Amino acid sequence: MSWEDKVRRVVPYVAGEQPKERDIIKLNTNENPYPPSPQVLQAAKELETQMDRLRLYPDMNAAPLAEAIAQRYGASPEQVFVGVGSDDVLAMCFLTFFTGGGKLLFPDITYSFYPVWAQLFNIPYEEVPLDDQFRIRTEDYLNRGELAGIIFPNPNAPTSLAKPVAEIEQIAAGNPGCVVIIDEAYVDFAGESCLPLLAKYDNLLVVQTFSKSRTMAGLRIGYAIGSAKMIGYLKDVKFSFNSYTMNLPSIVLGTAQIRDDAYFLETCGRIVKTRTWFCGELSRLGFEYPEPSANFVFAKHPEKSGEALFKKLREKKIIVRRWSRPRIGEYLRITIGTDEQMRAVVKALEEILPGI
Amino acid sequence: MSWEDKVRRVVPYVAGEQPKERDIIKLNTNENPYPPSPQVLQAAKELETQMDRLRLYPDMNAAPLAEAIAQRYGASPEQVFVGVGSDDVLAMCFLTFFTGGGKLLFPDITYSFYPVWAQLFNIPYEEVPLDDQFRIRTEDYLNRGELAGIIFPNPNAPTSLAKPVAEIEQIAAGNPGCVVIIDEAYVDFAGESCLPLLAKYDNLLVVQTFSKSRTMAGLRIGYAIGSAKMIGYLKDVKFSFNSYTMNLPSIVLGTAQIRDDAYFLETCGRIVKTRTWFCGELSRLGFEYPEPSANFVFAKHPEKSGEALFKKLREKKIIVRRWSRPRIGEYLRITIGTDEQMRAVVKALEEILPGI
Repeated sequence: MSWEDKVRRVVPYVAGEQPKERDIIKLNTNENPYPPSPQVLQAAKELETQMDRLRLYPDMNAAPLAEAIAQRYGASPEQVFVGVGSDDVLAMCFLTFFTGGGKLLFPDITYSFYPVWAQLFNIPYEEVPLDDQFRIRTEDYLNRGELAGIIFPNPNAPTSLAKPVAEIEQIAAGNPGCVVIIDEAYVDFAGESCLPLLAKYDNLLVVQTFSKSRTMAGLRIGYAIGSAKMIGYLKDVKFSFNSYTMNLPSIVLGTAQIRDDAYFLETCGRIVKTRTWFCGELSRLGFEYPEPSANFVFAKHPEKSGEALFKKLREKKIIVRRWSRPRIGEYLRITIGTDEQMRAVVKALEEILPGI
Repeated sequence: MSWEDKVRRVVPYVAGEQPKERDIIKLNTNENPYPPSPQVLQAAKELETQMDRLRLYPDMNAAPLAEAIAQRYGASPEQVFVGVGSDDVLAMCFLTFFTGGGKLLFPDITYSFYPVWAQLFNIPYEEVPLDDQFRIRTEDYLNRGELAGIIFPNPNAPTSLAKPVAEIEQIAAGNPGCVVIIDEAYVDFAGESCLPLLAKYDNLLVVQTFSKSRTMAGLRIGYAIGSAKMIGYLKDVKFSFNSYTMNLPSIVLGTAQIRDDAYFLETCGRIVKTRTWFCGELSRLGFEYPEPSANFVFAKHPEKSGEALFKKLREKKIIVRRWSRPRIGEYLRITIGTDEQMRAVVKALEEILPGI
């Protein structure tokens, strides 16, 4: 027997292309087109004067960052859990809250890592079909017997469609026996957050990220906000097997970024405005799409192949995202970039459409 | 039923104290007393001119960093896996290599996270007793039937005792059916690395860290070096559920640090020199300790209580590490700091010893 017989074999994850070319328009991974706040540069300059701090382990709780997040959202620092991107936070949540028995529910069309983490931690799960308009149906998540938990993004990905908070409240209220996680990675682009529900439902947890609206995918910061009790459980599990994951630059630069609320609101506002203009153009060109609430649009053309559109755009150095999967194979997920980038997309589509 | 009934309950990890006081001598978490290389400051200044890169996801493979590590150790970049501290790397290794059946072997007195990760991934394990002189016995790891794997630090922690590479070779050669991981967190303090064995044994994996000899615990970087095939398996598992964990500052600053080999060798040399002097003083004061090969000494006094020594040192604002556990309860693990710090420890011990 060889050691290779014992290796855990997985299907490797295929992430959105990260091109090396310089003149590409990269609209495939929902990154923010705007740089971080100028305050982040100031924080970096201050950090430079303290490079000797790098020799020490960072604060386990990433305290300054957790405090800044808490302050921004009117929570206490004990209600905030910080991790290496929301992927790290969500994986910890699966492990902490969803391994206690019963099935985990999430939509059939949603963030692709949910089934991966469920498999990793041996959590039975059911992928609940979205309805014909890609909506998450409230009734599908009620009266389902014993559940391990419920999770979905709001707005959902890759559909960009938001579910009203009043409907999410029904799901939280109807499932006191399990934790309900709302993954709000895209909520800041004119969505409605479930954070106000936390005061009423102690089984609810809200997860957000610095990678989209807070324009720092390169820093890897995600966070969960919930009851202090729930966050305490999460920390116990996390610290029990990897205590120090948030490095010093993350803590220092992330804190500067979240404190600049004016910059955050302004850049999110710009993206929403660009999205509105871009959706008008998509409609003019005959595309259909669910009403977007995220920094991307999920669009198809009733007469044109999604695959052909994807390839033609790529030839024009515009990268969007597409999945060869049932129900969504004709759709393109197009991240909202700058006005200039989106004008280039429209121009490219105008050139491509007649020929396919 | 409440959601709380389903929560995974763990015994929270108790890390070495991270004091807030300024005038403390902190010798409890094996941090390096010297700051990072001056080259790291230069890299930080360059990064400042590219803050807009933070809006993008970082390179999944942390390529510049992996390449610099590969170059330093005469390996190819495909032989290097980078993670968020060696804790992240080791946890990934447990998941990838040790879940295929059979028992995992590691010493009874060793790094405290091994049993934690084994439990996390449901890996059966056996804690193999060290001998009376705290040595890892080669024969305990041979002819053991089907094994999930073998792991131990070399030098071992918290004993600081090194095992000769020739003995480790016997263990690698005797266990072709499982992966053997040597955790070389402390190898650079005059230890002997197993890296040369990689050419002969494809079941061997070596893990190292930036947190000790490379004086960057605050940046969170660990790495594994092995065959390209083995590293490929590790990447598949890791990328399948959290693709982007190394943030941009880690990649940029870590690369600068590992490239400054002269600084690395000089600071490691200084610590070894300080250790030699400090051990002489410990002997003079009547302490006993295994021959140290790490940046710490594991010492006890034959007539004095470890607990009392620990407390008295803490009163004098010197923090060392101690465990209330069988076999090692009388020992103190003392990190090697600067000459000045170690002189202060000796002076404190001279004052303390007569009174207890």
